[in-house]
Amino acid sequence: MKKELIIVRYGEIGIKGPIVRKRFENRLLNNIKSALECRIEVDQGRIFLHTDDQELARQVLSKTFGVVSFSPAVVTETDFDYIKEKLKAYTEELVQEGLFSGEDSFAIRCRRVGKHSFTSQQMAAFCGSVVYGVTQSKVDLTRPDFEIFLEVREDETYLFHQKIPGPGGLPVGTQGRVVALLSTGIDSPVACYLMMKRGCSITALHFNNHPYTSPDEEKIKKISEKLKEYSHGARFDLFAVDYGEFLSKCIEDAPSRMTCVLCKSGMYQTAEKLAQREGALALVDGNSLGQVASQTLPNLVATRHFTTLPLLSPLIGWDKVEIENLAKKIGTYTLSIIPEEGCSAAPRHPETHAELEKVVEAQNKLKMDKEVDNLAFSLRRMKI
Amino acid sequence: MKKELIIVRYGEIGIKGPIVRKRFENRLLNNIKSALECRIEVDQGRIFLHTDDQELARQVLSKTFGVVSFSPAVVTETDFDYIKEKLKAYTEELVQEGLFSGEDSFAIRCRRVGKHSFTSQQMAAFCGSVVYGVTQSKVDLTRPDFEIFLEVREDETYLFHQKIPGPGGLPVGTQGRVVALLSTGIDSPVACYLMMKRGCSITALHFNNHPYTSPDEEKIKKISEKLKEYSHGARFDLFAVDYGEFLSKCIEDAPSRMTCVLCKSGMYQTAEKLAQREGALALVDGNSLGQVASQTLPNLVATRHFTTLPLLSPLIGWDKVEIENLAKKIGTYTLSIIPEEGCSAAPRHPETHAELEKVVEAQNKLKMDKEVDNLAFSLRRMKI
Repeated sequence: MKKELIIVRYGEIGIKGPIVRKRFENRLLNNIKSALECRIEVDQGRIFLHTDDQELARQVLSKTFGVVSFSPAVVTETDFDYIKEKLKAYTEELVQEGLFSGEDSFAIRCRRVGKHSFTSQQMAAFCGSVVYGVTQSKVDLTRPDFEIFLEVREDETYLFHQKIPGPGGLPVGTQGRVVALLSTGIDSPVACYLMMKRGCSITALHFNNHPYTSPDEEKIKKISEKLKEYSHGARFDLFAVDYGEFLSKCIEDAPSRMTCVLCKSGMYQTAEKLAQREGALALVDGNSLGQVASQTLPNLVATRHFTTLPLLSPLIGWDKVEIENLAKKIGTYTLSIIPEEGCSAAPRHPETHAELEKVVEAQNKLKMDKEVDNLAFSLRRMKI
Repeated sequence: MKKELIIVRYGEIGIKGPIVRKRFENRLLNNIKSALECRIEVDQGRIFLHTDDQELARQVLSKTFGVVSFSPAVVTETDFDYIKEKLKAYTEELVQEGLFSGEDSFAIRCRRVGKHSFTSQQMAAFCGSVVYGVTQSKVDLTRPDFEIFLEVREDETYLFHQKIPGPGGLPVGTQGRVVALLSTGIDSPVACYLMMKRGCSITALHFNNHPYTSPDEEKIKKISEKLKEYSHGARFDLFAVDYGEFLSKCIEDAPSRMTCVLCKSGMYQTAEKLAQREGALALVDGNSLGQVASQTLPNLVATRHFTTLPLLSPLIGWDKVEIENLAKKIGTYTLSIIPEEGCSAAPRHPETHAELEKVVEAQNKLKMDKEVDNLAFSLRRMKI
């Protein structure tokens, strides 16, 4: 049955004070509208979305942060006869599609807003008898196999059977801009996703380590495009910088075991320059404590020391398998695992207990400030 | 049937290089032994744990980071007759306990290590016929209702039917010490848990805001005791500091909307002093971006500016409902929601866009350095 509207629920926004709430709601509506031609009404903490393209609407809402769940619904007048007719047809179609049968127990869930001459229970009982008339299914209010929902308003009543989960979080663009270090690995795209989920706009920064990796930038573009699908309504930028020459200097001028530490430190410092230019307030990386040799606490101390902006590592407490599972869910995993050469600049025995003084010494020898200025100067905006 | 040993599986440790792996394995064994009288053998990436107290063993392993799953098992000789006898008795007991019946389809999963005169498939087929002899259940290798596992070694064979999930992560104590800001709310205990999960030892620091909150410290003790259950094998310390006098100064000497920002900044700075004293390498807090008015990016920038150690916020990308769900799972939720007065020092309209210059100005007026020294001097170690 053609669904006439979509009921959209949003969660955490609802607990904010009235001013913040209004701002978050507006942002949510704008974000949806930026990706979908539609008409929207907001009433009592729900969004009622009318659109001709139901399929696109599902895709968009599944990737709109702030959306907790949504339900494609059919509309009828708030009148027993009309409701009976519509519900009967709706149930028959569910049976035809194999979604519901006489073997399944069921429950009618009725939610009523406004004044009516009947109670929610009376309406639910009435609708239960209509459904029974079609399928002879038995009612089970505690653990039903199937649920049909009624949302009864003043003049209109909405019928639906699905609550499709949204991605949760806060609308993108409500929390300001961050610069996210983005590689072609599994972790950093997930970190980027999590910060968008908490409302951040993203300026992604990719370090091209050629000749120590392939010069190819198709993979990072594809990953960015996938992430951008979650960012409608807010600008998602991608910058790249050629990092190979700097890495060569690190290899030549510093002890080989320091290469990874200097590489990471240089990334943060370059990212901070970009953040200043773009008005971003924090940096984001995909660090997960202890996952690989370089992700130790001493290395964290030594590599983060040279940046003043907060560095957010949303995966710091995650296991690899948890990161992989989320990557699969959001669609970046299949892109990240496309085979590529590892970075050949990494030494056989990378430093795992970097000492701050030695890092300072190595950076002075490298004339790090000048290197970082050069890197910041050569940042390339990439088209995605 | 009395289980004679427990097979313990550990995950992420397995992907480390040989030296790190050995260190992590040893730490895992020591952590288990510190909480459980037992005999342990390690073979081919599995732990075989012998203990008289199966119930305690289950409790301990469920709270030992690094453990992916574990299986209480019975032991028999690797011999068809012995296996048949044991498996028959094992199956009969499963039926008696109502865990398995003729209505359930089943599969035998056989894993074989070493050289034998039979293949794993042959052994599985043999065992399948033994089980069928008891229950007449039908075999379904693809989607069985019930699974029975055989682990066949050179001389001994282990039988089990459960794979109980462990908490994952890395063994506590493999990643160094962190100072975790711990309140009686829902979030910070979960943040603390996540850092333990990634191998950190914890020095928890609690700020007692009396007279702006209740002076009671029972709640923080209970929460710490619960968290400490996950830290066997590594020291879990709790410190408290009386923070009310400092808060009074903030209220008197600074614009009222700045109170929360100065409070947080003072906490970080005090935590850093404790970290230096205790040899901790990072600070941890329960921040979740945008969850409440004070958790904005500008506030993050302004409050973190005065500490040099990395500040880890493992919940920065989490929704409230996700944090609550994990709090319930680890057992801190019911403790955190015990009613208490909110902090009465918080102004009606707290700053949400703190400007760094103004924070610096306010801190200078407060003589923040001296305040922080005094706070650090008055830290109390609490008994838990």
